[in-house]
Amino acid sequence: MAAGRQDGPHPFDVDTASHPGGDGRRGATVSDRWTVLTGHPNGGYLLALAVRALHEDIARPLPLVVSGFFLRPANPGRASLSTEVVRDGRRTATGQARLVQDGKEIVRATATFGDLGDGGPTHTVNTVPDLPPPEECTDPMAGIELPGVSMLDQIEYRTPRLPGWMRGAPSGRPEWEFWMRMVGREADVAALPMLVDAGPPVVMELGEKGSSTVELTVHVRGRPAPGWLACRAATRHVSDGYHEEDFDVFDSTGTLVAQSRQLAILT
Amino acid sequence: MAAGRQDGPHPFDVDTASHPGGDGRRGATVSDRWTVLTGHPNGGYLLALAVRALHEDIARPLPLVVSGFFLRPANPGRASLSTEVVRDGRRTATGQARLVQDGKEIVRATATFGDLGDGGPTHTVNTVPDLPPPEECTDPMAGIELPGVSMLDQIEYRTPRLPGWMRGAPSGRPEWEFWMRMVGREADVAALPMLVDAGPPVVMELGEKGSSTVELTVHVRGRPAPGWLACRAATRHVSDGYHEEDFDVFDSTGTLVAQSRQLAILT
Repeated sequence: MAAGRQDGPHPFDVDTASHPGGDGRRGATVSDRWTVLTGHPNGGYLLALAVRALHEDIARPLPLVVSGFFLRPANPGRASLSTEVVRDGRRTATGQARLVQDGKEIVRATATFGDLGDGGPTHTVNTVPDLPPPEECTDPMAGIELPGVSMLDQIEYRTPRLPGWMRGAPSGRPEWEFWMRMVGREADVAALPMLVDAGPPVVMELGEKGSSTVELTVHVRGRPAPGWLACRAATRHVSDGYHEEDFDVFDSTGTLVAQSRQLAILT
Repeated sequence: MAAGRQDGPHPFDVDTASHPGGDGRRGATVSDRWTVLTGHPNGGYLLALAVRALHEDIARPLPLVVSGFFLRPANPGRASLSTEVVRDGRRTATGQARLVQDGKEIVRATATFGDLGDGGPTHTVNTVPDLPPPEECTDPMAGIELPGVSMLDQIEYRTPRLPGWMRGAPSGRPEWEFWMRMVGREADVAALPMLVDAGPPVVMELGEKGSSTVELTVHVRGRPAPGWLACRAATRHVSDGYHEEDFDVFDSTGTLVAQSRQLAILT
């Protein structure tokens, strides 16, 4: 179902790779293919890079919960990662990764890994976003050129109607329900920490220009089935310039696969 | 407005204190006054202890966002804390604290400190819990003795009606709106990381027996005014035994002062 792309490894897999160095750290390259409106690489991409490095040290199927603190903006170029296994327990294992550029820590990520339950209790109160099929929706980025925003080459969106702020008329309601997928690659649990940060900040619907993430927590709740992801982003409280953004991701079968919340500062 | 108690420092202030040791760590005592149904001290109390220790190293007014990973159950008794200032920036500072007992790490807490904005944009979508005044509500713990659950001596609750699970009839709706306050002490920003974890897990309304926190993220969104706190706890997704719990805290003026989300495992 994913759109076509050139052969070879996908940019996400190339750009989140790291390799052991001689100094106990891992070497990596922060790619220029995930930049956003600030000109800097997307925080979710950096978090996915850090979590993948940490996952190399932890023999568990997937990250269950990830918390990333964003300390400084990253820049495309060389980086290093130091990882630490904090606790390797019976059911779960927890570790920490630090992403460093030019001697300065950029992201500190802590994550607990494990496996999703097999047949434990399941109960759902939340509803799947009420969206027409992606085929009946609009590509909000069609005809839009945003120089320097390379992340838009990696992610596709579909929406029943353009967000108000894209029509020059912010709705005053900081929420958005939409479809999203990676270009040329199915989403998986490794991509979820990136995807939950891949939408435009919904505070744009309040007429705000943007927002900078302080901390992002991601719960991985399921393995995404192939296909489009139904997403819901919402901010309920902007308080003196700080705001949370909650982000739910459902796969094409209507199963919740990720929930995230971030604290951000309006810019 | 807070209920009376003996003179002298409040248990919360005594039990979250730590002092520099000779080895670069801080010494502390995990108190037996915050135990919950498991017999172990409450995770939110441990998080408040860790954040307070870290705050000693960081000259900022308050924690803006805190993430705690719960690695092992704590036990009342001696503990040590190691703290690290990760980044001391212009607007915010970030650090990390590790709570250790018997050589084993119990909690790893990361926090960004700063100040609440002064007059930045404010916008509220969320609603304050619709509760009658506390004076017209019931004390759900009246007449209930839970041996070993010492935390109930520190926290008071008021509710318009008893939760279904307390009446032997779980409602099937994992949510609760209620009043809460500390006994003999007003809530402040230092207490919020404890308070967001001080309610019973709302999955009890699904007939579950309890739940164990993997990670808890707390956003401090305001300084609580004196008086009762209006709280809303809700779980929207239990998936194969894992669930989130969201917790909003509003002060007596109706201002949001904390939002939290935790990932937990049914026990």
